[in-house]
Amino acid sequence: MDLQTELMHKLEAAEPEMIRIRRHLHAHPEISFHEVKTAAYIKAFYQNLDCTVTEYGEGYGFAVDIDSGHPGKKLALRADFDALAVQEDNELPFKSQNPGVMHACGHDAHTAYMMVLAKALIELKDQLKGSVRIIHQPAEEVSPGGAKGMLAAGVLTDVDNVLGVHVMTSMPTGSIGYHLNETQTGRGNFTITFTGKGGHASMPHLSNDAIVAGSYFVTALQTVVSRRIDPFDTASVTIGSFDGVGSFNAIKESVTLKGDVRIMKESTRTTVRHQIEQIAHGMEAMFGVHADIDYDDNYPVLFNDPTLTAQTIDSIKQAQLPEVTKIFDCGPQDPSEDFAYFAQDTPSTFFYVGCQTSDGANHPHHSPDFLMNEDALLIAGKAVGTATLNYLS
Amino acid sequence: MDLQTELMHKLEAAEPEMIRIRRHLHAHPEISFHEVKTAAYIKAFYQNLDCTVTEYGEGYGFAVDIDSGHPGKKLALRADFDALAVQEDNELPFKSQNPGVMHACGHDAHTAYMMVLAKALIELKDQLKGSVRIIHQPAEEVSPGGAKGMLAAGVLTDVDNVLGVHVMTSMPTGSIGYHLNETQTGRGNFTITFTGKGGHASMPHLSNDAIVAGSYFVTALQTVVSRRIDPFDTASVTIGSFDGVGSFNAIKESVTLKGDVRIMKESTRTTVRHQIEQIAHGMEAMFGVHADIDYDDNYPVLFNDPTLTAQTIDSIKQAQLPEVTKIFDCGPQDPSEDFAYFAQDTPSTFFYVGCQTSDGANHPHHSPDFLMNEDALLIAGKAVGTATLNYLS
Amino acid sequence: MDLQTELMHKLEAAEPEMIRIRRHLHAHPEISFHEVKTAAYIKAFYQNLDCTVTEYGEGYGFAVDIDSGHPGKKLALRADFDALAVQEDNELPFKSQNPGVMHACGHDAHTAYMMVLAKALIELKDQLKGSVRIIHQPAEEVSPGGAKGMLAAGVLTDVDNVLGVHVMTSMPTGSIGYHLNETQTGRGNFTITFTGKGGHASMPHLSNDAIVAGSYFVTALQTVVSRRIDPFDTASVTIGSFDGVGSFNAIKESVTLKGDVRIMKESTRTTVRHQIEQIAHGMEAMFGVHADIDYDDNYPVLFNDPTLTAQTIDSIKQAQLPEVTKIFDCGPQDPSEDFAYFAQDTPSTFFYVGCQTSDGANHPHHSPDFLMNEDALLIAGKAVGTATLNYLS
Amino acid sequence: MDLQTELMHKLEAAEPEMIRIRRHLHAHPEISFHEVKTAAYIKAFYQNLDCTVTEYGEGYGFAVDIDSGHPGKKLALRADFDALAVQEDNELPFKSQNPGVMHACGHDAHTAYMMVLAKALIELKDQLKGSVRIIHQPAEEVSPGGAKGMLAAGVLTDVDNVLGVHVMTSMPTGSIGYHLNETQTGRGNFTITFTGKGGHASMPHLSNDAIVAGSYFVTALQTVVSRRIDPFDTASVTIGSFDGVGSFNAIKESVTLKGDVRIMKESTRTTVRHQIEQIAHGMEAMFGVHADIDYDDNYPVLFNDPTLTAQTIDSIKQAQLPEVTKIFDCGPQDPSEDFAYFAQDTPSTFFYVGCQTSDGANHPHHSPDFLMNEDALLIAGKAVGTATLNYLS
Repeated sequence: MDLQTELMHKLEAAEPEMIRIRRHLHAHPEISFHEVKTAAYIKAFYQNLDCTVTEYGEGYGFAVDIDSGHPGKKLALRADFDALAVQEDNELPFKSQNPGVMHACGHDAHTAYMMVLAKALIELKDQLKGSVRIIHQPAEEVSPGGAKGMLAAGVLTDVDNVLGVHVMTSMPTGSIGYHLNETQTGRGNFTITFTGKGGHASMPHLSNDAIVAGSYFVTALQTVVSRRIDPFDTASVTIGSFDGVGSFNAIKESVTLKGDVRIMKESTRTTVRHQIEQIAHGMEAMFGVHADIDYDDNYPVLFNDPTLTAQTIDSIKQAQLPEVTKIFDCGPQDPSEDFAYFAQDTPSTFFYVGCQTSDGANHPHHSPDFLMNEDALLIAGKAVGTATLNYLS
Repeated sequence: MDLQTELMHKLEAAEPEMIRIRRHLHAHPEISFHEVKTAAYIKAFYQNLDCTVTEYGEGYGFAVDIDSGHPGKKLALRADFDALAVQEDNELPFKSQNPGVMHACGHDAHTAYMMVLAKALIELKDQLKGSVRIIHQPAEEVSPGGAKGMLAAGVLTDVDNVLGVHVMTSMPTGSIGYHLNETQTGRGNFTITFTGKGGHASMPHLSNDAIVAGSYFVTALQTVVSRRIDPFDTASVTIGSFDGVGSFNAIKESVTLKGDVRIMKESTRTTVRHQIEQIAHGMEAMFGVHADIDYDDNYPVLFNDPTLTAQTIDSIKQAQLPEVTKIFDCGPQDPSEDFAYFAQDTPSTFFYVGCQTSDGANHPHHSPDFLMNEDALLIAGKAVGTATLNYLS
Repeated sequence: MDLQTELMHKLEAAEPEMIRIRRHLHAHPEISFHEVKTAAYIKAFYQNLDCTVTEYGEGYGFAVDIDSGHPGKKLALRADFDALAVQEDNELPFKSQNPGVMHACGHDAHTAYMMVLAKALIELKDQLKGSVRIIHQPAEEVSPGGAKGMLAAGVLTDVDNVLGVHVMTSMPTGSIGYHLNETQTGRGNFTITFTGKGGHASMPHLSNDAIVAGSYFVTALQTVVSRRIDPFDTASVTIGSFDGVGSFNAIKESVTLKGDVRIMKESTRTTVRHQIEQIAHGMEAMFGVHADIDYDDNYPVLFNDPTLTAQTIDSIKQAQLPEVTKIFDCGPQDPSEDFAYFAQDTPSTFFYVGCQTSDGANHPHHSPDFLMNEDALLIAGKAVGTATLNYLS
Repeated sequence: MDLQTELMHKLEAAEPEMIRIRRHLHAHPEISFHEVKTAAYIKAFYQNLDCTVTEYGEGYGFAVDIDSGHPGKKLALRADFDALAVQEDNELPFKSQNPGVMHACGHDAHTAYMMVLAKALIELKDQLKGSVRIIHQPAEEVSPGGAKGMLAAGVLTDVDNVLGVHVMTSMPTGSIGYHLNETQTGRGNFTITFTGKGGHASMPHLSNDAIVAGSYFVTALQTVVSRRIDPFDTASVTIGSFDGVGSFNAIKESVTLKGDVRIMKESTRTTVRHQIEQIAHGMEAMFGVHADIDYDDNYPVLFNDPTLTAQTIDSIKQAQLPEVTKIFDCGPQDPSEDFAYFAQDTPSTFFYVGCQTSDGANHPHHSPDFLMNEDALLIAGKAVGTATLNYLS
């Protein structure tokens, strides 16, 4: 029996364990940067296995090193383990036991398949070349994200490449989606406070109306995408929060706006930021307000190394996994992902494992009724396992 | 000693009582429509006096009838007694004892001088003709105002004219301001909720962004005053509250705006309202949002009957009150006042008694450091008393 | 026969002459600053009369001095004589013979009655005190106006007061309107050119779209009146011209806007101008355009000296002219008038003589079908003559 | 000598003829839909050649059929021949002799190489299979374009595929650019007239200001691209003309805007059009104006059949033409092209032949100093000839 067959058998046998782990994590979710018990639970799993566990960064992130003892490259596999501040709506035996917290994005699945895959790789490590570093990452959901800190702490030192996966309820179970080059949007966020001068509603000439300034700002902001961006390029600018809560008869002294920027090229990020700042200055010039801008350029564009990605996908195609019915270029994806920090540092690849429930119902990520098909656990394990074997042999 | 001299002497003698009452009320303020103890306190004052106390309306308002026993006209004198939801900042022996509530507009003064004046008029009533109705009104500060309910309950039935006064920190103590015809703005208020469709900030095309609709609404709203109103007419339209509080990365489904309108002619009120509604419809046409409009046309323009006002002011001028150093046409005033409902029903006059502190400092009405010169109490009493005598003899 | 009666008789007798002169001028209109023949025609009228004709300024303006030989004050009477660039639509025996030019504002009437009145005053001058200066002014219709130049040339030196009249089609013939203090709006005009960067419509990111900048400018401009001006004050800001003519598929490099400002207080003028400039700077900050602003503060607010105006109107009232059926305070008037320069220099009064046609039809000033009732000529002559006699005796 | 070699030799030998023809056309340009002499000149060329000339449509377009006499497919080759309303700035021996008209886009080159290639193919036709239809098309530059009419007249009946070429000054001479699938934008154009009510600048309340409506329209229009289009999709909306020319002191009654829309998907075209219409309705709701919309959806997205394009490009690559130094995927192109009508009807391919001058200077298409490297003529002939031989053998 060749190594690939052996690994697939091991994963098939361990599918119940994957599901058990995933359900445990699902029942005990912890929000970003507060994953104390989650991290402890995962570490306990590795306690008696032949591997090295090392913490990286200030959070609860750590890596598990699996060394074949033979020369070769070092491949990192990344799984994130934080949950969201969402109250679960599903009725499940393993429904979240923590009020207001839920694994509504599938990070429980990422961690579960990865733990079982790691154990299998440890058992087979003598037959590999080089080494594998499993990255158990916290806090993917909240800026600045857990990847950044682990990276700064050296988690990618000596790593040749990184591979990651996200389960996707928008793709049928059995399908694997990928895209070359720019694959998920980069992101920026900003908070702008316009401070004018309050007063009585019947005497506007004695005030500098901050709601008026904030509103003209929003209308002028539309020109960033409509006039400043190449129509063949990608950008979005959204004001997600306009806090101008006040009373009927008083002119508002200040308003605070929160905004979100998505781009697919770093040069576009610069253009957008500059333009937003200029428009804020325009409000200062026109309306007697002061603009305080707190601009946070966070997640980079997730760049999938085309060679590595093609090689990864090809290895999965050639393995002809019976559970995988479709492998397709799914195009770029709107959301942002802090795996992008790893990919920015080291050639990486990130692909998608369909996990839609069999009835095809809509259970979007981050929603209180997020629900996945657990068959995706084995598929993810087999796909990543196959790519890893191919890479290290 | 003639009647005018007698009344003035009585008021002078009772000045300490005016101040004592005002300080009691100041220390025990109650907000609009909740003036239980205030009303009871005032009523107790009249208990053993030769007058009739009658309640009008659902609130705590009542009137005190002083009948001379001789034929003649019936003049109503109005004093309001509610306080504001403001936390007093002043350090005074009679500082507000009710947290978050304050007589920050001077209604304590209106009530205090009026009670003492009423008592004096009761004592002198046999020398008068006709009758006086003292209106102790609640809830001037909050729409729909206390005047409306008292009016509906018949407080002005058989009343020939109404006279009212407001103390003004913007005018020096000793001055009396008046204006003929339209004197204080009419007011309308509205709440508009724009409801679109929420979504993820990175996918604007799947949402109908309510913050964008609300912002374009505010910018288009500026044309109401700039293009629809005769430059020689008066109007203001203010959005005092823009509640679009949300998060960075979600497109907001709905926003709620609260607005304030001031006008000096009822035809302008109609124009402004129509135009605001049209602009809200424009947002519906353009941005895939639904606009729920709750429009409340409340306080009328306060119209000072020119004959009555001229007669009133002339009588005060002729009295040559030593405390009164200046009587002047102060022009129309920005704020609105629910005395306007009385004036709409019955020819009325409303004038202003300066109460600025002697250092000339700025203590604006409705502010936490509102402070008045208590000399204004006697001046108000004398001015209103003089006008009443003149009217009823 | 007293002097007043004698003057009235003279004017009545000369009514046909007034009409003849007015029709001659109407048939031979000349546009502002080009009134060569008009001025010559008027001067010829004075040639053999006992008066002194003096030119003032670079244009065709001149004054006619009528000296009584007795000590006294010097009163100036002003009549303007320019026409408009309008093509007459009326069919009249004395229709304009100059294509595209028309006396569509009534300056022909002003000049006609004034010439005849002047002649009458010359004939009666020995019975007067002091002296009269008739100002025949060119170019009222076009900034900077003819008044400014004549003033600079000294036409008001030694003049005590100035009196002027405008015929008004909006007022019935027989009525005389007046207002005290601020009476006609002051005016400013501006031209703003926004220059960005042109380009192909399919590549907006390579251009700075001047039409976008110009449009946001217009929307922000609405806040000048809606937020910066006291609701009890008066201001209007109009963009009367937006020249962004181009083609479908090219992004416009520059646009030129022309604007008009009206105010009733000089301090408001300053506020408006400052705010317009700030908003133009806002466009520069936001849209990568350069704003060239050419701002021309021209006609002042026309201020009617209250004492002089009251005295003038009273004298007309007391004369009980049979043709005058109504004398009323007509309130402030929207248009601007360069008589305001005279009034700014010297206490003056300017009033209105109704000239509506008897059918009450609408023939607005400056329209191609402007039409007046010629009875207004005699009324203007009598009213101004009466006020002059009263002033100089 | 094989057929390919023979054709290449013929073209090399005829390069001077290509240049001569191109210069003749360049010197005698005619604008779209008026190409009388141009069409006659081209037809004369074919007079004594063994081919069939057939006119298609109302314009001056015609096709030249070259039948091999052997069974096989029918390939159409398209060359356009109209010029632009541009005044040539270049000083050339063959400078445009028609004032205000210029071949500023390279259609002279398209026609010249095509005529010479056609002649060569006629000479070699016995060695081909199937047939070639040369389409000499008028009026590419002006909506609705010449392609539409020829298509309606049946020019593609029995045609299996169409091939076209554009010279490009933005690509170095020697390079050939191509793209699969959607390759040039589709286009729409619209004219909107907003009609309100004119009036005097000092009386805005009596008017409905069309400049204000047009300006708010432009600002709201920015949301089409910023909020309605998937950030991964392509769209642009430009107002290229804003005709609101008027005078300082009059409120403008109507303004006319001309707009341009570019899209890469037909569903996006529908979204954009609907949204523009809705925003125009919004102006009607808000500003008392009527919107007349004349919307012209014209050129489709140019779709390059991926199989045909790949086969065409592969054949050129394999031919290893010495003049061709680079063949690359140039990505989608911003401008629109009426070849898209042919491609919409019949699987087609359209690629780009670099023609930049050797100094690399910027001579953009449609500019008065458009200038091309004539080496591109032979390159275009060889590339299209190669693809044709490959296709028909």
